[in-house]
Formats: sequence, C-alpha cells, structure tokens
Amino acid sequence: MKTRAAVAFEAGKPLEIVELDLEGPKAGEVLVEIKATGICHTDEFTLSGADPEGIFPAVLGHEGAGVVVEVGAGVTSVKPGDHVIPLYTPECRECPSCLSRKTNLCTAIRSTQGQGLMPDGTTRFSYKGKPIFHYMGCSTFSNYTVMPEIAVAKIDPAAPFDKVCYVGCGVTTGVGAVLNTANVEQGATAVVFGLGGIGLNVIQGLRMAGADMIIGVDLNNDKKEWGERFGMTHFVNPREIEGDIVAHLVNMTKRGADQIGGADYTFDCTGNVTVMRQALEASHRGWGKSVIIGVAGAGQEISTRPFQLVTGRQWLGTAFGGARGRTDVPKIVDWYMAGKIEIDPMITHTLRLEDINKGFDLMHAGESIRSVVLY
Amino acid sequence: MKTRAAVAFEAGKPLEIVELDLEGPKAGEVLVEIKATGICHTDEFTLSGADPEGIFPAVLGHEGAGVVVEVGAGVTSVKPGDHVIPLYTPECRECPSCLSRKTNLCTAIRSTQGQGLMPDGTTRFSYKGKPIFHYMGCSTFSNYTVMPEIAVAKIDPAAPFDKVCYVGCGVTTGVGAVLNTANVEQGATAVVFGLGGIGLNVIQGLRMAGADMIIGVDLNNDKKEWGERFGMTHFVNPREIEGDIVAHLVNMTKRGADQIGGADYTFDCTGNVTVMRQALEASHRGWGKSVIIGVAGAGQEISTRPFQLVTGRQWLGTAFGGARGRTDVPKIVDWYMAGKIEIDPMITHTLRLEDINKGFDLMHAGESIRSVVLY
Repeated sequence: MKTRAAVAFEAGKPLEIVELDLEGPKAGEVLVEIKATGICHTDEFTLSGADPEGIFPAVLGHEGAGVVVEVGAGVTSVKPGDHVIPLYTPECRECPSCLSRKTNLCTAIRSTQGQGLMPDGTTRFSYKGKPIFHYMGCSTFSNYTVMPEIAVAKIDPAAPFDKVCYVGCGVTTGVGAVLNTANVEQGATAVVFGLGGIGLNVIQGLRMAGADMIIGVDLNNDKKEWGERFGMTHFVNPREIEGDIVAHLVNMTKRGADQIGGADYTFDCTGNVTVMRQALEASHRGWGKSVIIGVAGAGQEISTRPFQLVTGRQWLGTAFGGARGRTDVPKIVDWYMAGKIEIDPMITHTLRLEDINKGFDLMHAGESIRSVVLY
Repeated sequence: MKTRAAVAFEAGKPLEIVELDLEGPKAGEVLVEIKATGICHTDEFTLSGADPEGIFPAVLGHEGAGVVVEVGAGVTSVKPGDHVIPLYTPECRECPSCLSRKTNLCTAIRSTQGQGLMPDGTTRFSYKGKPIFHYMGCSTFSNYTVMPEIAVAKIDPAAPFDKVCYVGCGVTTGVGAVLNTANVEQGATAVVFGLGGIGLNVIQGLRMAGADMIIGVDLNNDKKEWGERFGMTHFVNPREIEGDIVAHLVNMTKRGADQIGGADYTFDCTGNVTVMRQALEASHRGWGKSVIIGVAGAGQEISTRPFQLVTGRQWLGTAFGGARGRTDVPKIVDWYMAGKIEIDPMITHTLRLEDINKGFDLMHAGESIRSVVLY
C-alpha cells in the first residue's frame, strides 16, 4: 500500500512529505492508521544529527495515536478498529525484564528497534524501491505505520486522538516518573528543574500524588504561569536569586525540628548535566530521591561527591516514566478521560502534516509546549 | 574519675597511652566501661590527618562493646550492668529522620558530635586540665567513656565483648548494606568490590539474604580464600583478566532468554571513585542497584553517563549499613549468637591497649582483617 509520510532523508534537513510504499503487517505485527502525532524533542534531537544513534533515511515520530487497520498472523491482543497508542517501549510480558517486576525496559525487540528495523530485520517502508528506516519502533510521522503487536497499547475508543497521542511519550514520561519511578507519597516536597512539557507533566503527576510543596525551577519567567496551571506551588528563576541554586532550594525546604532542608524528590527535566547534579544535591539528606528524565548530550557525564549518596540520597533515572506500555498507558488515557490529569492546555499548536516542519520551528523558538500533527 | 586511654594528640603521630580525667555522666548520658574495641580504617583515616573533619587532641575509636557503670539523670532505657555497644549513629526516635521511616541518619546530636563534643557542647575528657575531644560520639579507645543514652544499644549479656565489638561498625555496615540499603532478595546476583572487612561482611550478608551468585573482586589473590570462607561463589582479580573489568563482570552474569548481563546488586567497599563507577556500570540494566559503602578521599568525585541511570540503574550509598542503632544492632548480636552470621574468624588479632599502635601497623601492612583491643 501507499502512505503519506514526513521523511527525514538526512540529518539537519527539514522533513519531506512524500508518498512511501508500506508493506502490510507480517506475523505478530499490526498495521495502524495514525490519526495524530506529537512532535517531541527526541525527534528533534535525532533530526538535528546530534543523536549518535540516529539512522537515515527514516520516518521519525514516536508519540502517536491511531486505529488498527489490519493484523498479521497470530495477533490476538488487538483487532481492526481498536484504538491504539504506539509504544517505543514495548511490553512483551515474556522477556526477563518484563517478568522481573522491576523494570519497564522490555528487551524483546531491543536490538532490531535500535537499528531502525522490524523484529525480522527488515523495514516495511520504502521509497522508490529503497528501504526507509523505522524510528523508535513507531514512525508516527506517517499516516500508516506497521508495529509489532507487543508495541501497541489498546485505549478507550472515546479518547480524542489529537490529545491522547501525547500520552505516547510526554505525559507518560512525566507523570510516570512521579508515580512509578520516584513513588511520591502524600505530603511530599518536590523540586522540578525545567518547565517544558516533561516538567509540566511531572508537576501534574506530583499534584496527583498529593505533594504539598512543588517547586518549579526555570530560567524563563513565562514558565511560572504554566507551572502554576498544573499545580506548582513555588517558582524559582536561578538567575534572579542571590547565590547558589542548591543552597537556595535547601533553604526553601527547611522544615521539621532539625530544620534540615532539601526536597524529598527532585526531577531533572533539562538534559543538562550540571542541573542533574544540582537536582541530586538539592534533595534531602537521608532519603532524597533524584530522578533524571532529561536526555544529556552525547558523551556528557554527571558527577558528584560520593558523600551525597553515602548520606542517603538516591540517584535514579527513568525511561518512559517507568511505565509498562500495554498495562499503564491505557490507564493514563482513562485518567485523562476521568479528569484526573490534564492534556488539552499543553497542546499549544495543531498542524497539518504538510506543516510539520513548522512544529519544529515552534519548538526551536520556545513557543510551543506541544505541537500535534493531524492526518 | 580517671581512665586509661589511647589519645591522638596530633595527626600523623602514634597514639599515646595516658591517664585522662573523665567527668561522670550528665543528664541523659551514661558512663560505659569499654571492654573491647576494634580498630577501623576510619580511625586510621582520621589519625593520618587525611580526614578534613578530624579534630585533635581526641580519643579515637568507635567500634566498642562494654558495660554501663553509671547513668545520668533521666536515663531510663539502660541501667548499670547492662551490656551495650556504643553507636556513632544514634537513634533518638524523635527527630524528623528517626520518624521518617526512610533513614537511619538520626540528627538529634549531629552538630555537637561533628565538633567532638557532647550534646551540651562540652567534653567529658581532659588531660592536665585541658579538654580532649570525643570522636564520632564514641571514643572507645578509652577504658571508660561517656555517651548519650540515645547512642548506646543494649545487647545480649552473654555476647563476648571481644567479638561483638565488631558489630559496632564493620559487621553492621556490611551486613546492613545488603539487608537494609540494597534489600537483596533470594536468588540475586551480586558483585562485591574490595574484600577487606567490610567486603567480607557484605558477602556474609549476601549469603544470609540468599544470593545465588556472589562475585568478589580484589587485586590481592589472598582474598579469594577469605571471600569463599564467608560465601563468595566467584573471585575476579582485575589484574588477571583480559580487557575491561566491567565487560568481564557483565559477561560473567549473562543469564535469561535475552542474555543481558550485569549484577542485580553491586557494592563498592574500596573508597576508590573509579571502582565506584565500575560497580554502577557492572549492575544490570533496568534494575541494578549499586551501593557505595567505601569512603572516598576528600574532594574526590564519582561520575558516569546519565544514560546508565536512565536505563534503570540506581546509585545509592549507605552509612552504618542503614541500621537504626538501638533497634538493629541488638538483632545483629542475636544473629551472631544464633550462628546466622560469623565474626570470630574475622578477628585476626587481639591486642592489649598498650599495643594499640601495633593494630594500626598490622592494618597498614594489610595483615589483619580486624584487630581488637582488650582493656
């Protein structure tokens, strides 16, 4: 069949809207009609050429929602007509990781996915007879895409595609970091570094978990209103305080008989390794958990004095918010439908596929929280 | 009263055995007759002058066992005749940390303890009319010492002082790191870096927790027999393998359908920041927990790529094995009495107080696991 897609032919160039050939689903695969897709910083990271693992030419996009059109042999968990969200972190429920009860990082199709291939080692997309690579196992910048069955989450058919596509990455990453990775409890104190889309979703996750003090940190004062919109209780612009940001945050969070400061939980949503260290060191002696969500540039390293850990701070990271895709993503869609979390105000721009490069421009200009592309 | 003590008059010099004046216990304090004390690397670290927080002149020693001789006003939890282990990490059961259920790092007397003082801001020891400082709130290199009530753990009176004094630091630190900090489960795979006293106690903690594969790593082949004595199943000398120690350990621990290697738990017992990084990176993708136990040199830093954490590894530290002193130390003594853990073979040397400097010499020469001084 044919599909209209935005193709990244090479790094650093705009996407090109072309018609691709798409092979139908093989055994264990499903054909999905993508109805909407978000444009995420990770797509931008790869398109820019900064991602050392980027492969071209490829169909990027990993934050979509759509409808199953056709299923391959042996597919039992979804059927044509089901509404689904593609999962860049699949959930096979059979590999050692899925069975470990300790991680969401399913390993079933990890090596082929990293090479831009389907599990059988080939691509379904081609252009003028030449293969076009898949991306993060999703390739949602295409009106139709083929996915492994284990990489689609079946969701409430009443959920609007142009909103819940965001659950495919940003919402789940932020909310999940709070609920699955950090395990935040009622009454907790938290600091969120970086109030972009991920940071705002961390904030609404903290509100949902019942945190009492939610401090947002950002260099841009415009983010104060955004943070407050989702539950932030305090805002700090590191450029507008005197002295060190860590000392400032520790001071703000002093409490209890011993007046020891530091947040119970801190989250880095910046990808900046200096900020990651600040986040760890602004967490509370004895039990502070600091979670790295942001993706650092290639080769960059985090560091700290081991004393920070020996005195009880924990340094963690999260991918896809620690969420098991087929199990947790449908739940998050349900929470949206029930009003437990918000998505609509974060979708600042809605574009047609032919305008997809404008979405990247808006991101570069810092003018969007999330741009969503409709087919 | 008078007490015989080994005093550190200045950094880098041998201890001097002298008779000190010792004031009796004030309100909330107890006078303890120390019957035995271990010599720990931390005493050596301070005595050498390398410890930036070292204070002189002081009575060092923090790994003791003894008998309560007298109690000050208001003391209710112990009485004269009780056998106790001094606690450098007290347990007041009233501060925010004790009440947090998340940490053992009681803050009740933290600031005075760090200054070598009793909670009222004075010292009980003096020599020729001049104050001698306390050390880690214990000062067990003295036949008699004064401690806050919240800093003594009442233990089984049948327990031998010359063995269970080791529970005051090394045993609890190693066994506790496994049971309290890492929370190791049956069947786990673990790597222990550094097979000194702490490493051996980590190994026996892992045996107790039911770990299936316990890999010990040390540059000294003599440690193989020591490790095996306490439950180590595999030994690696990094100098005797080809290539990188991390890749070697990941390879050794490959298992399951996806053949992903890495240990479920790794422990640094070296204090070397390069080894701390190796320990983290040799832990399993998705769920590996790496625990820092060793104390690094002043100003040294750990580092890694944040990707290690984002893909699910957790970087932790532990102090006093995460043990709450008054609650957990008596239990560990009971485990020793019941044969669940071993101590006797680790006490390689027993000395008289006047020979205490020999204990430091044995440590420098790498000839002891633990030297214990008797009064």
